[in-house]
Amino acid sequence: MLKNKSDFGGNVIEFVTSPNNPDGNLRNSVLKGPNVKTIYDHAYYWPHYTAIPAPADEHLMIFSMSKLTGHAGSRVGWAIVKDVNVYKRMMEFIDVAEMGTSKDGQLRALTLMKVVAQGDGKQLFNFAHQILSDRWEKLSRIFSLSKRFSLQRIPTQYCTFLDRVRAPSPAYAWVKCKRKEDKNCTQVFRLAKIIGRPGSKFFAENRYVRLSLLKGQHDFEMLIRQMKKLVSQEDGVGAQAISSF
Amino acid sequence: MLKNKSDFGGNVIEFVTSPNNPDGNLRNSVLKGPNVKTIYDHAYYWPHYTAIPAPADEHLMIFSMSKLTGHAGSRVGWAIVKDVNVYKRMMEFIDVAEMGTSKDGQLRALTLMKVVAQGDGKQLFNFAHQILSDRWEKLSRIFSLSKRFSLQRIPTQYCTFLDRVRAPSPAYAWVKCKRKEDKNCTQVFRLAKIIGRPGSKFFAENRYVRLSLLKGQHDFEMLIRQMKKLVSQEDGVGAQAISSF
Repeated sequence: MLKNKSDFGGNVIEFVTSPNNPDGNLRNSVLKGPNVKTIYDHAYYWPHYTAIPAPADEHLMIFSMSKLTGHAGSRVGWAIVKDVNVYKRMMEFIDVAEMGTSKDGQLRALTLMKVVAQGDGKQLFNFAHQILSDRWEKLSRIFSLSKRFSLQRIPTQYCTFLDRVRAPSPAYAWVKCKRKEDKNCTQVFRLAKIIGRPGSKFFAENRYVRLSLLKGQHDFEMLIRQMKKLVSQEDGVGAQAISSF
Repeated sequence: MLKNKSDFGGNVIEFVTSPNNPDGNLRNSVLKGPNVKTIYDHAYYWPHYTAIPAPADEHLMIFSMSKLTGHAGSRVGWAIVKDVNVYKRMMEFIDVAEMGTSKDGQLRALTLMKVVAQGDGKQLFNFAHQILSDRWEKLSRIFSLSKRFSLQRIPTQYCTFLDRVRAPSPAYAWVKCKRKEDKNCTQVFRLAKIIGRPGSKFFAENRYVRLSLLKGQHDFEMLIRQMKKLVSQEDGVGAQAISSF
């Protein structure tokens, strides 16, 4: 919106979520110029979720333990800030707002970081990518049989971190209900005993729903079971085709 | 200031720090009326620091682990809120600002609470009061020999929690430099190798300095040693009087 306002003169901060939640797309800033500061939210910029096209090197990037190891509750994040004045103001804000992050959380985060960095520093990412790409494949096969629902497409890509072409492994399935009458996609899934987050929570139509692929294995297996049931109810989808995988 | 403005019509929140930091005085709200909300900061409202005249029973009270057990770094506090709408708004704010307090910090706080509540729930407070009242007495005796410095006076009081009259045991010594030329009291102490916080940090003159009595035993003993040196340099203070205790 701001990009198209040629007379816009004020200072502005653009927030770039890359990869984006819910669709997992890598994004870039839209606004340029001396009055623009860009903050890259790299919460999901980890090799288990996305191909890493290049090392992150923006002027202001924020990260979090939340999606790196799953320890959201420790409330620990960090930032890489190239402008020393911005850094100082951030520190002042943190001091005033909360007098710093929980030391207990920091201690846990430090321990986790050491585990992440063990060996060649790629083991955790290889492991997590394996789990998530398996899940994505299973889910994709079910959706490929459906005419009622569609799943976002993610190409295989070369990852500079894992040093290989890799299958997609996003954190979330971003699903569209295609039937005209399925305006509330979350409700459609809810009736099938699958809890998702509505598109409206992500500035999209409620024809979309986000399913999480980050739960424990048991929860994922329940999701697959319920998805199979849901898709097998469609006309033209053979129960046999579904049960064969 | 607001109390004396009879035409003041806006909504106002009064923050009451009770006991007050740095002087340890129990305080009450000044403003009354339908447009006034009062928040009692009870960070120091614990029997190790102050006589408890009555159980805390205000409409909105905030507490913290920081001064209860000394675990400030866990960043865990809690509130007792009688107005359900205020409670809901507080929860909304916390959700937006930080999505909740560190779970690691909460877990530590819970463990600490269980320790505090052990036995009759008074052991920790008796222990800490003993330590702090000993410290206060030692420090008071040194100041009683000084004409250059004065220490705030705190009466003995009946404590409903400990169920006895008790000696003062504040967290801080609030000290005044009485000589005309000692305008920067913090600097006077700094030269004597004692680090305090200047009065200006507490909306007072810099003729005042706050000394912490909450450090480890070794630090406290260093404070006593340096204080003895400082006071013994005054005219009319016998080195013998100082060294006798």
